[in-house]
Amino acid sequence: MKKHILVVPGDGIGAEVTAVGKQVLEVIAEKFGHEFSYDEALIGHVAIEATGSPLPAETLTKMKGADAILFGAVGHPKYDNDPSAKVRPEQGLLQMRKELGLYANLRPIKLFDELLDASSIKPEILRGADILFFRELTGDVYFGKRERLDEGNTAYDTMIYSKYEVERIVRKAFEAAQTRGKKLCSVDKANVLESSRLWREVVQSLAPEYPDVTVEHQFVDAMAMLLIKDPKRYDVVVTGNLFGDILTDEASQIAGSMGMLASASIGDSTGVYEPIHGSAHDITGKGVANPLASVLCVALLLDISFGLKAEAQTVIDAVDAILKVGFRTRDIANSSTPADKVLGTDAMGEQILQRLKA
Amino acid sequence: MKKHILVVPGDGIGAEVTAVGKQVLEVIAEKFGHEFSYDEALIGHVAIEATGSPLPAETLTKMKGADAILFGAVGHPKYDNDPSAKVRPEQGLLQMRKELGLYANLRPIKLFDELLDASSIKPEILRGADILFFRELTGDVYFGKRERLDEGNTAYDTMIYSKYEVERIVRKAFEAAQTRGKKLCSVDKANVLESSRLWREVVQSLAPEYPDVTVEHQFVDAMAMLLIKDPKRYDVVVTGNLFGDILTDEASQIAGSMGMLASASIGDSTGVYEPIHGSAHDITGKGVANPLASVLCVALLLDISFGLKAEAQTVIDAVDAILKVGFRTRDIANSSTPADKVLGTDAMGEQILQRLKA
Ligand SMILES: CC(C)[C@H](C(=O)O)[C@@H](O)C(=O)O
Ligand SMILES: CC(C)[C@H](C(=O)O)[C@@H](O)C(=O)O
Repeated sequence: MKKHILVVPGDGIGAEVTAVGKQVLEVIAEKFGHEFSYDEALIGHVAIEATGSPLPAETLTKMKGADAILFGAVGHPKYDNDPSAKVRPEQGLLQMRKELGLYANLRPIKLFDELLDASSIKPEILRGADILFFRELTGDVYFGKRERLDEGNTAYDTMIYSKYEVERIVRKAFEAAQTRGKKLCSVDKANVLESSRLWREVVQSLAPEYPDVTVEHQFVDAMAMLLIKDPKRYDVVVTGNLFGDILTDEASQIAGSMGMLASASIGDSTGVYEPIHGSAHDITGKGVANPLASVLCVALLLDISFGLKAEAQTVIDAVDAILKVGFRTRDIANSSTPADKVLGTDAMGEQILQRLKA
Repeated sequence: MKKHILVVPGDGIGAEVTAVGKQVLEVIAEKFGHEFSYDEALIGHVAIEATGSPLPAETLTKMKGADAILFGAVGHPKYDNDPSAKVRPEQGLLQMRKELGLYANLRPIKLFDELLDASSIKPEILRGADILFFRELTGDVYFGKRERLDEGNTAYDTMIYSKYEVERIVRKAFEAAQTRGKKLCSVDKANVLESSRLWREVVQSLAPEYPDVTVEHQFVDAMAMLLIKDPKRYDVVVTGNLFGDILTDEASQIAGSMGMLASASIGDSTGVYEPIHGSAHDITGKGVANPLASVLCVALLLDISFGLKAEAQTVIDAVDAILKVGFRTRDIANSSTPADKVLGTDAMGEQILQRLKA
């Protein structure tokens, strides 16, 4: 198979982890006889520094021309502490999502058995949990009108959804549920929000078309509790952009660590594969970031964008095998991990590559 | 001390749990020689059924005339499954908050040692956690303009904050931090939302007035993860209405169960004391609801509205003692709780009352 992949490292640890991801792609191509070509592009803070724009035109052109995008992270503390900054790294990320029509963000939350102890949640609560989140990604309060009023003393954002936006993501979630545990949980705040009532109406109106799927509605506050109280209860979860942002970060504790979670953003064109963890400037450049989320992004990319299921499974199996041997990065190690098994980013990458080549 | 208390049971298990709370007030009055008088009023679904309005004028008048309000819960599944209902129980709750100027919702999250095992989170993560949440309660997307557009096919809600609204709640949080661990964590989504950037600006501008308090900012997605990863890291947390709704429900797992959490809503006039749990129609009328959140509401009421610290502590000590003896309601029992120690609502209330009278 001949494919062109754009690597977009972005900010912070993005560069360190996508470097490992790219090497995994190279080894897979070699092993399975594919021809992958690569290019690289800037986004976020590094793009602002280089070009003034968080999503340079050149990056967008390259994105549209690629068969898939391996993404790092976006963000910089400099802007977080300066609420009045006009140009911000995150604008690049949001604009990319909008421009590429990436309306569905898939976040599989599944614990590798070996990491049962890495979580703050009890092993017996976690064992067997396997949730697939569908987060809407191009609507909601992320893209509604926002402004300052009253000489800057009042600020508003607009949480907004149209039926067609809800319908297309909810359909994807129903379809996924049909191939899995046949349960769909839709999360909203319909007891207060009009946009949530519209959301719920759409889910209710589509449900009869998927009679084999059991539908449940939860309010977002209750869900934030239930998710960690009894994660095994959930199969496919679908929700809006903001609630999905919050709940999937929370759900990272179900998978042991944020450093293990990959996501796929798909829609009208090129798919983007991005770890759930952010730019993590506190550990940037120290060589300790966990590259496994980026490696698992590669598995999602091979599976979803290229339909290469066997290749994807090979990558997942390699991660599994390396964890079984006992290797850990710092974020998933605990007091009983032997010191010589705690690896940095590159050493962990090296283990994965060797296993893939074997 | 002579005080007038309004009991507002509301919907679902509200009646069962406030009945116990009221008895606790009566015993405390007797024991400490206070003169408490009582009245009752309707809100929510029961008020709609009786009067057509979720917050009848008579209820509001009684509320304004009371020295404190012991509140139950509001909500009914009937409306949840009917997104198009025009009159809803929750409107009564929100209107009450607005009319009484209850802009600060305090939610103390503290684990009773005996409940270490009731949580889905590991005991070693929880032990010693003690967080005081300040949730803003009369602004944000709860009260901004909402409507349908485009023949009902689009819906929006407005997330809106003015500086004075943020300032008054943030000041209360800073003041509380000064009397506790001297740490304040402010939660927002300032990397995306303009209302969050305004929120962060206000926190930053007030910080120099409280030099003894260390301030930290977290994005709501990261906080949803950090809160359960390392709850001991937090002392006072302040956030907006929507994020506070989500994070405090999540935080109930830190306290073992939602059934243990009380909240105080305070502001310009009468304080309202309300469990964090909702109307819980699935267990309504079964006599199994945990009344301890309502009992702990009484402790907050005595402390905050009446300044009766010794009386408040007596109530907390009674709860502590009853848990130490091993009594549990179903929600906080586990497989090692002997069957004869698992009590229903009234029997648990009876234990508390006996302990208070002793
Ligand atoms: C960086 C930020 C704008 C982004 C979001 O909120 O979508 C991130 O948290 C994510 O989940 O991808
Ligand atoms: C019932 C609902 C409107 C309410 C809220 O969202 O504020 C509840 O969840 C709460 O936390 O008091």
